[in-house]
Amino acid sequence: MMNPNIETFIGCDCGYEEADMVLYGAPFDSTTSFRPGARFGPSAMRHESFGLETWSPYQDADLTDCAVFDSGDMELCFGSSETALKDIEERAEEIFTDGKFPLLLGGEHLVTLGAVRAAVRRYPELHIIHFDAHADLRDDYLGAKLSHACVLRRCHDLLGDGRIHQFCIRSGDREEFRFAKEHTELHPFGFDGLKETVTALREKNVPVYFTIDLDCLDPSIFPGTGTPEPEASASPGF
Amino acid sequence: MMNPNIETFIGCDCGYEEADMVLYGAPFDSTTSFRPGARFGPSAMRHESFGLETWSPYQDADLTDCAVFDSGDMELCFGSSETALKDIEERAEEIFTDGKFPLLLGGEHLVTLGAVRAAVRRYPELHIIHFDAHADLRDDYLGAKLSHACVLRRCHDLLGDGRIHQFCIRSGDREEFRFAKEHTELHPFGFDGLKETVTALREKNVPVYFTIDLDCLDPSIFPGTGTPEPEASASPGF
Amino acid sequence: MMNPNIETFIGCDCGYEEADMVLYGAPFDSTTSFRPGARFGPSAMRHESFGLETWSPYQDADLTDCAVFDSGDMELCFGSSETALKDIEERAEEIFTDGKFPLLLGGEHLVTLGAVRAAVRRYPELHIIHFDAHADLRDDYLGAKLSHACVLRRCHDLLGDGRIHQFCIRSGDREEFRFAKEHTELHPFGFDGLKETVTALREKNVPVYFTIDLDCLDPSIFPGTGTPEPEASASPGF
Amino acid sequence: MMNPNIETFIGCDCGYEEADMVLYGAPFDSTTSFRPGARFGPSAMRHESFGLETWSPYQDADLTDCAVFDSGDMELCFGSSETALKDIEERAEEIFTDGKFPLLLGGEHLVTLGAVRAAVRRYPELHIIHFDAHADLRDDYLGAKLSHACVLRRCHDLLGDGRIHQFCIRSGDREEFRFAKEHTELHPFGFDGLKETVTALREKNVPVYFTIDLDCLDPSIFPGTGTPEPEASASPGF
Amino acid sequence: MMNPNIETFIGCDCGYEEADMVLYGAPFDSTTSFRPGARFGPSAMRHESFGLETWSPYQDADLTDCAVFDSGDMELCFGSSETALKDIEERAEEIFTDGKFPLLLGGEHLVTLGAVRAAVRRYPELHIIHFDAHADLRDDYLGAKLSHACVLRRCHDLLGDGRIHQFCIRSGDREEFRFAKEHTELHPFGFDGLKETVTALREKNVPVYFTIDLDCLDPSIFPGTGTPEPEASASPGF
Amino acid sequence: MMNPNIETFIGCDCGYEEADMVLYGAPFDSTTSFRPGARFGPSAMRHESFGLETWSPYQDADLTDCAVFDSGDMELCFGSSETALKDIEERAEEIFTDGKFPLLLGGEHLVTLGAVRAAVRRYPELHIIHFDAHADLRDDYLGAKLSHACVLRRCHDLLGDGRIHQFCIRSGDREEFRFAKEHTELHPFGFDGLKETVTALREKNVPVYFTIDLDCLDPSIFPGTGTPEPEASASPGF
Repeated sequence: MMNPNIETFIGCDCGYEEADMVLYGAPFDSTTSFRPGARFGPSAMRHESFGLETWSPYQDADLTDCAVFDSGDMELCFGSSETALKDIEERAEEIFTDGKFPLLLGGEHLVTLGAVRAAVRRYPELHIIHFDAHADLRDDYLGAKLSHACVLRRCHDLLGDGRIHQFCIRSGDREEFRFAKEHTELHPFGFDGLKETVTALREKNVPVYFTIDLDCLDPSIFPGTGTPEPEASASPGF
Repeated sequence: MMNPNIETFIGCDCGYEEADMVLYGAPFDSTTSFRPGARFGPSAMRHESFGLETWSPYQDADLTDCAVFDSGDMELCFGSSETALKDIEERAEEIFTDGKFPLLLGGEHLVTLGAVRAAVRRYPELHIIHFDAHADLRDDYLGAKLSHACVLRRCHDLLGDGRIHQFCIRSGDREEFRFAKEHTELHPFGFDGLKETVTALREKNVPVYFTIDLDCLDPSIFPGTGTPEPEASASPGF
Repeated sequence: MMNPNIETFIGCDCGYEEADMVLYGAPFDSTTSFRPGARFGPSAMRHESFGLETWSPYQDADLTDCAVFDSGDMELCFGSSETALKDIEERAEEIFTDGKFPLLLGGEHLVTLGAVRAAVRRYPELHIIHFDAHADLRDDYLGAKLSHACVLRRCHDLLGDGRIHQFCIRSGDREEFRFAKEHTELHPFGFDGLKETVTALREKNVPVYFTIDLDCLDPSIFPGTGTPEPEASASPGF
Repeated sequence: MMNPNIETFIGCDCGYEEADMVLYGAPFDSTTSFRPGARFGPSAMRHESFGLETWSPYQDADLTDCAVFDSGDMELCFGSSETALKDIEERAEEIFTDGKFPLLLGGEHLVTLGAVRAAVRRYPELHIIHFDAHADLRDDYLGAKLSHACVLRRCHDLLGDGRIHQFCIRSGDREEFRFAKEHTELHPFGFDGLKETVTALREKNVPVYFTIDLDCLDPSIFPGTGTPEPEASASPGF
Repeated sequence: MMNPNIETFIGCDCGYEEADMVLYGAPFDSTTSFRPGARFGPSAMRHESFGLETWSPYQDADLTDCAVFDSGDMELCFGSSETALKDIEERAEEIFTDGKFPLLLGGEHLVTLGAVRAAVRRYPELHIIHFDAHADLRDDYLGAKLSHACVLRRCHDLLGDGRIHQFCIRSGDREEFRFAKEHTELHPFGFDGLKETVTALREKNVPVYFTIDLDCLDPSIFPGTGTPEPEASASPGF
Repeated sequence: MMNPNIETFIGCDCGYEEADMVLYGAPFDSTTSFRPGARFGPSAMRHESFGLETWSPYQDADLTDCAVFDSGDMELCFGSSETALKDIEERAEEIFTDGKFPLLLGGEHLVTLGAVRAAVRRYPELHIIHFDAHADLRDDYLGAKLSHACVLRRCHDLLGDGRIHQFCIRSGDREEFRFAKEHTELHPFGFDGLKETVTALREKNVPVYFTIDLDCLDPSIFPGTGTPEPEASASPGF
């Protein structure tokens, strides 16, 4: 009775104090331009996680060996991107302050900017590894600077050139790909170069923020995205 | 951070100690004979509750004025009705022992038997008020004594004649309606007599267990049941 | 070939010049707090309109007798309510300037504010008749002043007391109903008083903006809303 | 083993020889103008019938007291209305020849024409009682004389004036309602006059073909039709 | 206001006069034998096209560089294949007459016959390249000569032997594959030989009609077809 | 009329006496732990089978060349696994007694135990070839020995070591994989070793029961399972 069985992500049985990582959900999709619903992502992922096992025969490793606390979903302000981002940033800030790492479940991709703002303040040398079907490098989208279509551009505003490593990108306008040529490391279509990037970043010993937009998966594998984009390479290759 | 915003039923913000009522979910549907899925009932009700307000203009009353603790869902054994019922009964027992009232969210209707077993032990004079489209008075269903189609019959085994007050019933076989004539107070089709029943039970000052099968609502109002049955009277009439 | 059969609302076969009314869609739902998707409203209404007839045996009247031009959907900026509202307001402004009346298809209810801003500038004596399940009178919602939950409050900012006539309202918090008592004419639950209101406004010969939130219909009749609220009176009663 | 439990309509346990009525499905929807799928009607009705009981507490009667044989679905030629109608007519002919009554499950409403052709040959005095949202009295639909929108008009070609009694009709074009005024007995919107019609036909002792288009039900009650039409009276009234 | 934003296929911003190609929809599915709904294909493709970009990083090419006019959907007669085909043929005829190429969006595969009739009259040397899961070479289907299952056979009636090049075919009856052996160039299961076919046709400088049935894609990639058929080769290979 | 066209699996046109194989459905899913609905499997497979052809161009073979009788679905007791298994076992027993082979359509995987009990009595040397995403080797699941998660463990109770050959397994807990190491032949992730296993069993001339859990397919190919598990190898490789 004292330990109610309310739904967390599977295997996140750790208390806050003991945790190394803190998972939190940002159920926000106000700027989604095509088909909304990403707000339901965090609760859907938690629910579906119980159809899996915590142990993986591929890795002979168990999720319960990690110390993760699931702090639930934030209550975010729909319709005001700046307010939502500030709240997400503050939550990440708190987690860093307590000596833990944040693990953010979205939500549309814009929510990442909140966590990156907190991360880059703490780790000025931050790099980003980015899996996505879309470059997300527009300077604005229909006038909005804060849009899921601009999120990596806003991250570039914070990090500068050569720090964003993009993989699996297969959609964008001409201008985004031109921008990428000069300012980011964009690996189109698949995961060629991922191993090399990881090795290089490890050698430099720089902090890395890892962000996945699930639409990097082919729509046959992940149909439930608001912006499906065909032709993904099936696997990161290692 | 210390109070994670994990999903409870709306307005159930009370701690366990202060609570008068304890809500708990029994996500079980193993005996459902037609269309399963009632196991998702408790989490669906919690989720949808956030589309409502805690305050009602009909009653000028607020859910937060009640002291309800939401203890989450039980983990029940699918495929073994007796095991599941024992667990549900124990949970109700604990809640009664702590001086509180249980508020059970199903799940198929069989789960009610677990809570009624605990209630009748504590309140031997127990009556039941039952809203349902179906009489649920079969002695067995395809050989099973523990089935959603038999749950009120099993309650009758515990309570005896004249203690079960059924409303809105509009489906069953001939035998169930014959049984009802002799052993329960079955009000077919709608809510005629409900006021009188409530007044009489109040005057006798007997304890009452109240159970609603949501299929008592017309399928136009509640399509998402496994056993829809048309022609419900729209309203209990008071 | 010269008249491509691209989809408009049924019976809107009139050219812009000849039209008395101009229909336009505002596919926006960025502030929707529960279940998004109202952005698909305008195109869904157009598509479904072809399952109906233009002639009504109830009224012995035909839609094609009205001179309506369907100007299609606007392209609005998701995530920025103020930008979207400005665009909607400008479109309404243009229509008024050309001596026609705007007929706005949403989208979430906030879009109404754009059209009301244009209307009140042209008709300072404007009244609003409002059919809705929700009062929409919050001063802010999670900090946002521009939210579907605040849209009639924002209209009140423009119109002042006694000019907003609300019907069918059955949801809100205590504060909204208190506000309504002093500042709007709120008719709870159904359409009592509608005839009298219409007669009085006709006698005063004041301009009226009419806005319907489709969730004023019971969810059994209109399940596809983001914020369903049960118990609607079935009919406006005349 | 010898009596495989393959799905028939509930309670249709009678053999062909003993049967008074023979149920057959016509899974055809080639002329459906809005949303197809009525071809799945017969199998859906059979499947859903097992969610009901054979006994009705409203009538104290049991389906198994009737001698009905379920002869399954026909294999009809999609895209060729005349071929499909000929096959349906032949099946009805056979059933009449064997001294039984046909009970046809559609499919779109055009299939009725096949059965009516057989019925009118055997019963030249045939009347039709017709429940529907739509008059179905067009002379052609986009050039096609054989269309769901013309089926009662084609029946009128066979039966002549005063023999078609239409109830619950609330949709059509002006011309159809004009035609009805002179040639059929059209009772708009609901079931007013049904009792009188039934009594009169009984007194005249004429044979009656009864046909229901399920879209006569309000879409809140029967959403799964291809041509939903709101505002049905809820009940035939007796 | 003068250029209403009514939905066309993405990037088809060209006027009719300037266009080289004219896109038109044939929302017809009356002969579909399994699961209907292909009538919704053209509007679904238009709607979903806005989830893509006009520019492709694979080809460094932009849709807006082509001069395509989207002339919307035809209004076709359901239930009468011959009437529908005649209308489709006339539309193609008009487009050819105006010196442009037609680009037809179905609808079931039978609609192709209408466009091929117009094309073969203008280009008697016409060849067809055909991507499909099904051979579509039946002489009739349940008696109908005009059926989606017979469409390439009807094209063969017009073109004769050796002019139909079929790829990805993995379903049909024995007779269709026997017919193909003598009369068409059928490449089963995948795209082996496509390059060679294209090269040869280019060298001969013959006109080619290209037709894709989307069910040539594996159901994991394109589940929304009425006749899914597993085991497609993933890619045309060049 | 005498041969009603009621739905069987495609090509199963043989009478019982002539049949070599008897197909039967076990629509049971009471122990399903995640998402129920497998009870609808047999009727769904029969219905969808009509979207395929009986002849395969891959094998140049026709289903109608096999003599299969489709005996329809059993009526099983939901909520009581033991009763359901006994009924399934008896049906298999009858089929074996009549000199035919049973072909069982589930339902959840537990139903296999009923058929295996009958098979092992008749063929004490029985081996099992098992395609599945899950090992299904738990000794109990939440206390239940009869659960879909334990079905191969129960088979091992009957057959002993070295007789169960598992392929494509990619989910389970650590304990199941440890058990497999000692007691079954578990081939993880794909079909490596299948050819060798089949050859070896053929040489030993032992009887084999073949059981497929459709979740062995990747969720992109077979999304409609209650327990999807990603990363299947695409093909058994021969």
